[in-house]
Amino acid sequence: MMELYGGVEGGATGSNVVLIAADGKIVSKVDGPATNHWLVGVDRCLENINNMVQEAKREAGADPNVPLKSLGMTLSGGEQEEAIRKMIEQLKVTFPKLSENYYITTDAIGGISTATDTGGIVLISGTGSNCKLVNPDRSVVGCGGWGHLLGDEGSAYWMSHLAIKTVFDAVDNYKHTPFNICLVEKAMCSYFQISDRMALLTHMYRTFEKSKIAGFCRKLAEAAAAGDHLSCHIFRRAGQELAQHVVAVLPHVDQKLHEGELGLPIVCVGSVWNSWDLMRNGFLEVLKEVKQKPVGRSLCKFTMMKLKCSSALGAASLGAKHIGYNLPMNYADNVDVFFEHCFSR
Amino acid sequence: MMELYGGVEGGATGSNVVLIAADGKIVSKVDGPATNHWLVGVDRCLENINNMVQEAKREAGADPNVPLKSLGMTLSGGEQEEAIRKMIEQLKVTFPKLSENYYITTDAIGGISTATDTGGIVLISGTGSNCKLVNPDRSVVGCGGWGHLLGDEGSAYWMSHLAIKTVFDAVDNYKHTPFNICLVEKAMCSYFQISDRMALLTHMYRTFEKSKIAGFCRKLAEAAAAGDHLSCHIFRRAGQELAQHVVAVLPHVDQKLHEGELGLPIVCVGSVWNSWDLMRNGFLEVLKEVKQKPVGRSLCKFTMMKLKCSSALGAASLGAKHIGYNLPMNYADNVDVFFEHCFSR
Repeated sequence: MMELYGGVEGGATGSNVVLIAADGKIVSKVDGPATNHWLVGVDRCLENINNMVQEAKREAGADPNVPLKSLGMTLSGGEQEEAIRKMIEQLKVTFPKLSENYYITTDAIGGISTATDTGGIVLISGTGSNCKLVNPDRSVVGCGGWGHLLGDEGSAYWMSHLAIKTVFDAVDNYKHTPFNICLVEKAMCSYFQISDRMALLTHMYRTFEKSKIAGFCRKLAEAAAAGDHLSCHIFRRAGQELAQHVVAVLPHVDQKLHEGELGLPIVCVGSVWNSWDLMRNGFLEVLKEVKQKPVGRSLCKFTMMKLKCSSALGAASLGAKHIGYNLPMNYADNVDVFFEHCFSR
Repeated sequence: MMELYGGVEGGATGSNVVLIAADGKIVSKVDGPATNHWLVGVDRCLENINNMVQEAKREAGADPNVPLKSLGMTLSGGEQEEAIRKMIEQLKVTFPKLSENYYITTDAIGGISTATDTGGIVLISGTGSNCKLVNPDRSVVGCGGWGHLLGDEGSAYWMSHLAIKTVFDAVDNYKHTPFNICLVEKAMCSYFQISDRMALLTHMYRTFEKSKIAGFCRKLAEAAAAGDHLSCHIFRRAGQELAQHVVAVLPHVDQKLHEGELGLPIVCVGSVWNSWDLMRNGFLEVLKEVKQKPVGRSLCKFTMMKLKCSSALGAASLGAKHIGYNLPMNYADNVDVFFEHCFSR
């Protein structure tokens, strides 16, 4: 009889499950609804997980009444130890045929465990931004992730806001910008369908929607690609801020993470990384500068990569590891390396 | 029979009316409810105004059936020409015994007209911030006033936010601060009644209330007064930002405003000005720097003052002026000068 190891990537908009055989072969994949317990509630969240896994068992030709060996789950909002303990307890009681063992971790650890078997940095830049260092001992050090009022530097929202603020301040004669604002101002009026600055206040306050503001960043990327200096500057600034997140956690990076073939692995998550070309110089500037300082001494090489498969794989691997089994994983297959840099000594 | 000139200061939380005789003597004052037409609606707003004025007539011993010569009104949100034209039309039709003539202007012009007969700068720093230059020809040039997501520099909200952000960034090792954050961090936890940074997110997002965040500024003022370097730095920064608003409108200042006895009059509105001692150095730094530049050439002296009476006086004066009558006003009686500065040549 087939021994199966399951993994769940749970998210706020959707989730997915992967089942892996003991030899590391993926035997089934199933997509499903949201499993963020903050959003859908714990009962619904666990029910969704059970439904997806049972469907995956059937798809793999396995008996749904036979529990998995282990089920690893990477859930956004999976930080609170007490909440996690309770969820696992509830899973065991409510769904005794689901799995013999459970392991729940955060999306950061799930992501890094899909990309490497040691650890690294997860650097998120989408609507918002966040950074988590995961060390080989699975301890986590974070920087940012405080939302648009206290963080989000280098995210799409942050870039849109910086562009809008630059226009407002220039028109007010409040803060000088060396760049021509015409194209960005025009793009702003067109994207928000407004004729003057006053009309933007409705979008910023009364009908505020973070993702709507962040969406303007796509227009900035187009303007930058067309050579607009202000837009290029904004993306370079985003590159600097994202690199600054790496610098922030650098003192906590375990020496082992520098010593692998890839140097320090940086797993990049979020759509802003599609504009890497526009951010690269700013990103490099900051890391080259820190390399000159004592804190940057260990940093000899870093590799930037995106996941090309679900974090459910990493979750499955962690779940198996939790019961003492090392699932064979070919990490190189799970990522797209899009940049690497060696510092000259 | 007594000829009376009326003035209304309309606000979002309360309003007041003043009636002045032709010789400039104040004959009655009445307080009343909000008259912001955005908040209470136009009908209610005009009804409130009528009630207050009629009560003031009775208090002055005048016949409520005899219209005032003029009624000047300074209303927050009194910018839109079309809306104002309609409100005046409606007042004439609905309340024929209220006044022979009407004049509506903004709170900035109302404030400046209470302090001087020429014009000057109104610099607001309370929960939010804003700056309006009013020239002798009553034309207005503004800077700021875009709310907490796009402006508010130098306001109580802005200082509270800067303090909180400085703590978050220092703990994250994200941005370096040369100041010890301990006292501000402790004050933050105590003011918001939280035990860690994560708990502050509820206050910043789920239950966001701008005035609650801004209220933390009072604790910063206390810490600064006790010598805390970070808090002192934040107030100095606020002084710089407020001065920068003045710099922004400086190129538009009519030469006549520099030539009066007071030099450039700056009418300061809002509770943050109670901490002027903490902001003064930052404020002066910025203006001294601009004095060295061509744009600052005309700036020889400036005088900072607070209104010590209602803007209804300025409104009454403007209303009278609108029908060709100059109400005698002793402007020096209406203000407290709290700082003046002459630049050495």
